[in-house]
Amino acid sequence: MKPKQYLLWMAAATAVSLSFSACRPKGAGSAVSGNAAQRTYVPPGQYDEFYTFTSGGFSGQMSVYGLPSGRLFRVIPVFSVDPEKAWGFSEETKPMLMTSHGFVPWDDLHHIESSFTDGMPDGKWIFANSNNTPRLARIDLTTYRTSEIIEIPNTGGNHCSPFTTENSEYVIAATRFSVPPDGPASDVPIDSYKENFKGHISFVSVDKETGEFDIAFQLKTPGLNFDLSSAGKGVSNGWLFISCYNSEQSHTLLEVNASQNDKDFIMAINWKKAEEYFKAGKGTKQTNVRYAHNKYDEHTHTATHEIKTEVTVLDVADFDDLAYLIPCPKSPHGADVSPTGEYIVGSGKLAALIPVFSFEKLQNAIGNSDFESERYDGIPVMKYESALHGEVEKPGLGPLHTEFDDKGNAYTSFFVSSEVVKWDIKTLEVLDRQPTYYSVGHLMVAGGNSKKPYGKYLVAYNKITKDRFLPTGPELAHSAQLFDISGDKMELLLDFPTIGEPHYAQSLPADLIKDKSLKIYDINNNNHPFKTNGEAEARVERDGNIVRVYMTTIRSHLTPDVIEGIHQGDEVYFHITNIEQDWDMPHGFAIKGAGNSELLVMPGETQTIKWVPDRVGIFPFYCTDFCSALHQEMSGYVRVSPKGSNVALTSYTGNK
Amino acid sequence: MKPKQYLLWMAAATAVSLSFSACRPKGAGSAVSGNAAQRTYVPPGQYDEFYTFTSGGFSGQMSVYGLPSGRLFRVIPVFSVDPEKAWGFSEETKPMLMTSHGFVPWDDLHHIESSFTDGMPDGKWIFANSNNTPRLARIDLTTYRTSEIIEIPNTGGNHCSPFTTENSEYVIAATRFSVPPDGPASDVPIDSYKENFKGHISFVSVDKETGEFDIAFQLKTPGLNFDLSSAGKGVSNGWLFISCYNSEQSHTLLEVNASQNDKDFIMAINWKKAEEYFKAGKGTKQTNVRYAHNKYDEHTHTATHEIKTEVTVLDVADFDDLAYLIPCPKSPHGADVSPTGEYIVGSGKLAALIPVFSFEKLQNAIGNSDFESERYDGIPVMKYESALHGEVEKPGLGPLHTEFDDKGNAYTSFFVSSEVVKWDIKTLEVLDRQPTYYSVGHLMVAGGNSKKPYGKYLVAYNKITKDRFLPTGPELAHSAQLFDISGDKMELLLDFPTIGEPHYAQSLPADLIKDKSLKIYDINNNNHPFKTNGEAEARVERDGNIVRVYMTTIRSHLTPDVIEGIHQGDEVYFHITNIEQDWDMPHGFAIKGAGNSELLVMPGETQTIKWVPDRVGIFPFYCTDFCSALHQEMSGYVRVSPKGSNVALTSYTGNK
Repeated sequence: MKPKQYLLWMAAATAVSLSFSACRPKGAGSAVSGNAAQRTYVPPGQYDEFYTFTSGGFSGQMSVYGLPSGRLFRVIPVFSVDPEKAWGFSEETKPMLMTSHGFVPWDDLHHIESSFTDGMPDGKWIFANSNNTPRLARIDLTTYRTSEIIEIPNTGGNHCSPFTTENSEYVIAATRFSVPPDGPASDVPIDSYKENFKGHISFVSVDKETGEFDIAFQLKTPGLNFDLSSAGKGVSNGWLFISCYNSEQSHTLLEVNASQNDKDFIMAINWKKAEEYFKAGKGTKQTNVRYAHNKYDEHTHTATHEIKTEVTVLDVADFDDLAYLIPCPKSPHGADVSPTGEYIVGSGKLAALIPVFSFEKLQNAIGNSDFESERYDGIPVMKYESALHGEVEKPGLGPLHTEFDDKGNAYTSFFVSSEVVKWDIKTLEVLDRQPTYYSVGHLMVAGGNSKKPYGKYLVAYNKITKDRFLPTGPELAHSAQLFDISGDKMELLLDFPTIGEPHYAQSLPADLIKDKSLKIYDINNNNHPFKTNGEAEARVERDGNIVRVYMTTIRSHLTPDVIEGIHQGDEVYFHITNIEQDWDMPHGFAIKGAGNSELLVMPGETQTIKWVPDRVGIFPFYCTDFCSALHQEMSGYVRVSPKGSNVALTSYTGNK
Repeated sequence: MKPKQYLLWMAAATAVSLSFSACRPKGAGSAVSGNAAQRTYVPPGQYDEFYTFTSGGFSGQMSVYGLPSGRLFRVIPVFSVDPEKAWGFSEETKPMLMTSHGFVPWDDLHHIESSFTDGMPDGKWIFANSNNTPRLARIDLTTYRTSEIIEIPNTGGNHCSPFTTENSEYVIAATRFSVPPDGPASDVPIDSYKENFKGHISFVSVDKETGEFDIAFQLKTPGLNFDLSSAGKGVSNGWLFISCYNSEQSHTLLEVNASQNDKDFIMAINWKKAEEYFKAGKGTKQTNVRYAHNKYDEHTHTATHEIKTEVTVLDVADFDDLAYLIPCPKSPHGADVSPTGEYIVGSGKLAALIPVFSFEKLQNAIGNSDFESERYDGIPVMKYESALHGEVEKPGLGPLHTEFDDKGNAYTSFFVSSEVVKWDIKTLEVLDRQPTYYSVGHLMVAGGNSKKPYGKYLVAYNKITKDRFLPTGPELAHSAQLFDISGDKMELLLDFPTIGEPHYAQSLPADLIKDKSLKIYDINNNNHPFKTNGEAEARVERDGNIVRVYMTTIRSHLTPDVIEGIHQGDEVYFHITNIEQDWDMPHGFAIKGAGNSELLVMPGETQTIKWVPDRVGIFPFYCTDFCSALHQEMSGYVRVSPKGSNVALTSYTGNK
């Protein structure tokens, strides 16, 4: 498409988009199922059918919703500080947000993916990527906390991530923006993109027992923008399919300059082969990288922050059998693999059709070296038709993402024409379409990226909400729409607002994980270095200008609750041990005058606030989480005296 | 009660509490209305009946829910940084979180109250208090943003706050913990509480047009712990009723030591009289205070942070007619005023009855100087019976808060016995009781603190959620329970989880405010000092080591998108102007390598990120809020060269 053609296309697309937004659909009419109320209502005291883990996008966090109710159970802090849960505020959690260039209080959590065993969610972990400072995170599904974060070197925008292989051997992360590899030689002119900018695809291994990450190896590729991807499964297990845009290798005004080619690519990677080469010692060790690896230990209740400086890189151009490019119309945003692994669906966001590729035909073409005559930067390019199963014709405008159900159907979101379209994976026939309010981005079918989708529910995650909910000023919540897909036609059940911008979600059956949810931390397994073993050991200790307060909390007092002999400028650490062992009995802690004075301490846990008092006086402290009838009485005072004062360090509770 | 008696009482109370939590009620049985699903379901495209503004407690924020659906429309950042909305991350919003002792990224937003005209919510503002660093905030109900924050001097824990007078003349804030007044003489022994610790009650005036705060005056009182309060209304307009605990003036182990007296107090304050004295020049000017006053301007799109150093203080002991103490059993947590203003309900959290005081009897007793013979630290103490309308007998264990409906009924929450009890304000007869799951703290009736409650819905805000929702590890969401109170008996309709810990809420009818909600910022009224007037003015400017990027954002490009000539250690400001003028078309901005790189820019607005690059290389930037089919193309690159490099400062888009 030439620039002028492109502009006409966009004008048409925009007109369609506006026609949807100009009228305010009441929604309660024909489109909504008559008994939607009963089908989404979960009576008090009963449980939802599914947990739905949802990415927060620019919030940097992950949210846990129930389906079909749409209720928000928990925001799990991952890549951003969270003033509700003290994530990034306590001394114990601060190291989790350290990177190779310091503490980063915010990031953009784009996608999530479940851990898998034999291609099915196994309920152990949820993986998530941060987009801006390239990182991967692992969330534990017993504690619903972030257990690990690892940074990804040589990467500019970790958007193409985290894609999990059939048995969680690897979580795969690829650069969105090609950039010069890390190191001092990266200071190059931006218009030297074609020579100097490279893509990197990272294979992060996952320990089967502990889940621990390690960057096994990276693949270096030509400069391209990588977008959403899928690991193969079933027949295509061992492969990876990455959508690529900007095959024009433009470095400016991508809106126009990266929309020139009629086809970009899906890159097919033989990762089992790459693993073989890596294990055989191929590739080069790059030692001018720096990346953080942070781990949270549930027994010491503390996090560690480590910097690593080496990564093994294999350049795909050095091997004949690692990477192949499948032409895909146009500026593809996703590559989705069907439950059997046979079909790979490309979604070109400027395309008016959906190409479906066949893994079998792809293998045949590779076996026969049935390639285009010209390579792309050294990589074989397949012939479009040689890999194609077929095209879904006239499906809508701007396909973005495709998920699958348990009956051989696919569901594709269309951003520009604001609809979800159901079609048959084999016959490619369009079976149903339903409008969304308004522009749908991602969509999610329960288990829709697994080998055996659960089906039943589909959620459309919509951008541009406008009048769907009571207005709340210029900033509006994004919106999810729940459809029942158990029948022939999709039925709209519910609109519910979401946190941040959900780019993807994973629904796990409640029965798979609910009984593994941890209720308390066992205080006998609390190995925190500054734990207080019961009230009798509560105390205050000074070492130079460092003062440590060993404090316990239990209904309804903090021990000690009177502290004197702190001096201006002291470095005071309140190590709070919650000695409760009852479910849902957290205590919080705050002290006046501490800039960052937030803690939320679960039963059996120890957490720490650092406080450097900057003036003299009496500073009250208190429990911040209403815990008992006498919660208001759960408080105390610290006296701060001038530097060099002779007020002795003392503490007591009740009696001196 | 002696300590031993107290412990027995608590053991009994705990036993009751445990008996409620030991079995898992399914809730779907007799207690839930048969057609609750229909009565809480809001079909897609339709609106909820009420906005419900809800305090976030230890999250520091405020949430906006819809009723009856329980859906969360927006978290309004107030006293904590918010990585979803860039609050406290952009240069423009950072000053809002400055205090007299620096930037405070977290606080504990305890209560909220609507602005009132003639005792009814007028839909202009919501006021909120922060508990730890004592502050008040004002939220604008056209933008749903925090417009103003003022710090409160002489205060330790601003929990007793923000109580609004009948026409929003004042928002009143009182100290939870008495402390020595601010200043260098505040370094005193903690066991000198009785001599040195004082309470302060602040009267913060509200400008009728702009809403702007000013601390008009403070009242100094004996050392006491102040708890929840209400301004008088109707017949009691001009008065304030503050619940007081720790009349024992203990400074340690309050759980026991502040639970000794059978009665504590409600303090009745004649604030109209105090205002008269203040206007007549009474009181003393205290000039050793320091407090912040921060304002956000919607035209310059920037905040200002100012430090003030003076406050006028009137000591109530210097006046005969400002303050009176009404004995109230036992450790009261609230004082709630009936719609007519005639009745004041005390809720003693260790009491087994509810005393209801009569404003008329109170006035008669004051007129007749019908006081106890002994004063309390110089303040007249009423005789209990002289002020008493009557007692609600055997209502439950541990009453906390009372709200009112439109039919002469009161509703009281009972934490220990986990129930809401409905009773007749005049006859004091108990009419109905419903269990809550589990321990209810606050409760809210729509308009229940106004002169004409809307009634219809009651929400119980419950602590200790345990098994009400699918479990999410040791940390669980608190829970709200929605009751229909339009009939004789309360009907449970819905459980929904909440953000943080909701200590109070205000329901406003959708029709009162929905049409005032702002859709976009008019770009012609954007007076930001670093606004970019259209793409033609987009540019990069250097002044020493300060580089300013004047950038525009509109679907689907950032201008400029190629920037070179930035040096390591430069102080780079990206001033992003969103030149869209369409509803719900925000753009975000992030750049790799910036620790704090979050922005979310509404149409017509300018927002700024500060970035000090710490290494050389190519740094991609991108729009973080999916805005169009070509959102993925909405990106660019910055080149950072070493300090002293001769790469010239340049920027372009599309063509050099």
